[in-house]
Amino acid sequence: MSAVNVGLLGFGTIGTGVVRVFEKNSEIISQRLGKELNLVKIADLDITTDRGVTLEPGVLTSDVEEVISNPDIDVVIELIGGYEPAKTFVLKAIEQGKHIVTANKALMAVHGQEIIAAANRNNVSVMFEAAVGGGIPVISAIKENLCANQFQSILGILNGTCNFILTKMTEEGSDFAPVLKEAQDLGYAEADPTFDIEGVDTAHKIALLSSLCFGTTVDFDQVYMKGITEISALDIQFAGQMGYKIKLLAIGKNHGDQIEVRVHPTMIPDTYQLAEVDGVFNAVRMIGDFVGPTLLYGSGAGMDATASAVMGDVMALARDNISGGKQEFQQWAIVLTKLKIYRLRQ
Amino acid sequence: MSAVNVGLLGFGTIGTGVVRVFEKNSEIISQRLGKELNLVKIADLDITTDRGVTLEPGVLTSDVEEVISNPDIDVVIELIGGYEPAKTFVLKAIEQGKHIVTANKALMAVHGQEIIAAANRNNVSVMFEAAVGGGIPVISAIKENLCANQFQSILGILNGTCNFILTKMTEEGSDFAPVLKEAQDLGYAEADPTFDIEGVDTAHKIALLSSLCFGTTVDFDQVYMKGITEISALDIQFAGQMGYKIKLLAIGKNHGDQIEVRVHPTMIPDTYQLAEVDGVFNAVRMIGDFVGPTLLYGSGAGMDATASAVMGDVMALARDNISGGKQEFQQWAIVLTKLKIYRLRQ
Repeated sequence: MSAVNVGLLGFGTIGTGVVRVFEKNSEIISQRLGKELNLVKIADLDITTDRGVTLEPGVLTSDVEEVISNPDIDVVIELIGGYEPAKTFVLKAIEQGKHIVTANKALMAVHGQEIIAAANRNNVSVMFEAAVGGGIPVISAIKENLCANQFQSILGILNGTCNFILTKMTEEGSDFAPVLKEAQDLGYAEADPTFDIEGVDTAHKIALLSSLCFGTTVDFDQVYMKGITEISALDIQFAGQMGYKIKLLAIGKNHGDQIEVRVHPTMIPDTYQLAEVDGVFNAVRMIGDFVGPTLLYGSGAGMDATASAVMGDVMALARDNISGGKQEFQQWAIVLTKLKIYRLRQ
Repeated sequence: MSAVNVGLLGFGTIGTGVVRVFEKNSEIISQRLGKELNLVKIADLDITTDRGVTLEPGVLTSDVEEVISNPDIDVVIELIGGYEPAKTFVLKAIEQGKHIVTANKALMAVHGQEIIAAANRNNVSVMFEAAVGGGIPVISAIKENLCANQFQSILGILNGTCNFILTKMTEEGSDFAPVLKEAQDLGYAEADPTFDIEGVDTAHKIALLSSLCFGTTVDFDQVYMKGITEISALDIQFAGQMGYKIKLLAIGKNHGDQIEVRVHPTMIPDTYQLAEVDGVFNAVRMIGDFVGPTLLYGSGAGMDATASAVMGDVMALARDNISGGKQEFQQWAIVLTKLKIYRLRQ
């Protein structure tokens, strides 16, 4: 069985999730791929903290070059986050002929064009399903399954931290500040929550999605954004009395010769599907000219769900591009263990 | 620009939808693919009915050989439906080296293994996203995006006709027979609605989905099915009083050494997302060990939504397998017309 080797940059929460997928599902992944998938190197500045997973000796390194310039590595997963040094490392790995999988929405929203142009020059792929909506396959849906459609609009609840806070405020009638504190204590909000609660993270994501839906570049500085910091318990109560829920909504619309991209707290009629997306869940609703309205819902963040999306991209690359080329996933119904079917008794 | 040629078997409702996609979106499809996509031949016994679309002279033929044995054709779309003659035509096209795209759930649920084995022998692909859930990308999600997960369960509302009837019965307090008649008059139910209302269509779909989720073959005869013909207005009223809605639910569960696959009317708590899937819409909810619960919702049937899924598959094949190999869709944000961004005024 041929093998595909993977290197990982960044051994934080999501990086740990990726290692957990390798630990638990390696066998089923090999069966589905028809190839071995090996995690050969992980680079992080912190090589001492116990992440609760087991690695072979020599896998963890503090030297990023052992990943991005390693001739044995086919795919580099970038999970450092932020603009730098992630951008420099990704561009260097691309120049070394590595395919890239990233969960970095900031990097792709702001520098995506430059990175994809570099990838095209070097004949490698950049996959970023995990950058938007955690485990929800929204980027793939737009770029692949629904790609015969012209998109009219895309709406999304794309930030689990904000949605958790607004859901708690709605359920408990609480104000913003104490709920933010609670979210921080629970690990749902970061110590510096600015990017989440001011809408920057959501704006990165809708900029990416709008770019893909409408086939244009989106200048991130042009995206209107307003966060949830000024929402009070009273706002939510009044909205509720009128039959609305308040959500931080990301909106992309196609007006033919212009597109509209914005993020702000929005009153959504409480009978709408998007009004019922609660807690840390995310959802995206898009309208294509043939497919009509389509909604995708799931875990929008977190170690495991984001790792699921990262590994879906890694497996797609391993299938299509590396050591032997395209191997159909469709074979996996045949190669896996035969199970008996349980028939319900009446 | 290189070209990929497509032939179509069956010029009914969905076939007409496919022609409509070519009519309306050919330019954007070529831009996204970086290749021309041409619909060169359509075979149907009926070559005289006006379908409200315009074809070049010579495209429509009553001779199926002009599609399946045509050396110029790369991809054959099968939209005849049913077991035969669809199966014979598909196998013959595969032997001629054609890639296959089909919306035929009956064919794939019962003869899928034989067809995929033939495709593997002939080094071509069989794509069937349109067979389940119309425009909803559920098969792709299972086979590709979520393929690093082990699936625990998959639940679905998969038949638009049944869901339309049950929704109408719920909203209007009507009994089954008059609502079926109304659905037939509206074109939402066929003259012989047996396959839909007895649960056979739903069973075909959940057999396919379970096979993909759990990596096993599913003997269709073993799938338990019960349709909606015995549901009365009183059943729905009582369920409602207890806080439930009645839906025709498809269920696939993994018990480790056995799987459970069944279809029957089910009382769903009316706070659940699946209880709120109304009318002709479909939804699928699956739970993977890493991604957690994920729900996909959209138009489950109909000319345009199903054509969207068919064309997504055709474009994936055109991108990956034909004339020049893989051309990244990710380039399309760069190649398309530049649009201005409209900035919302406060």
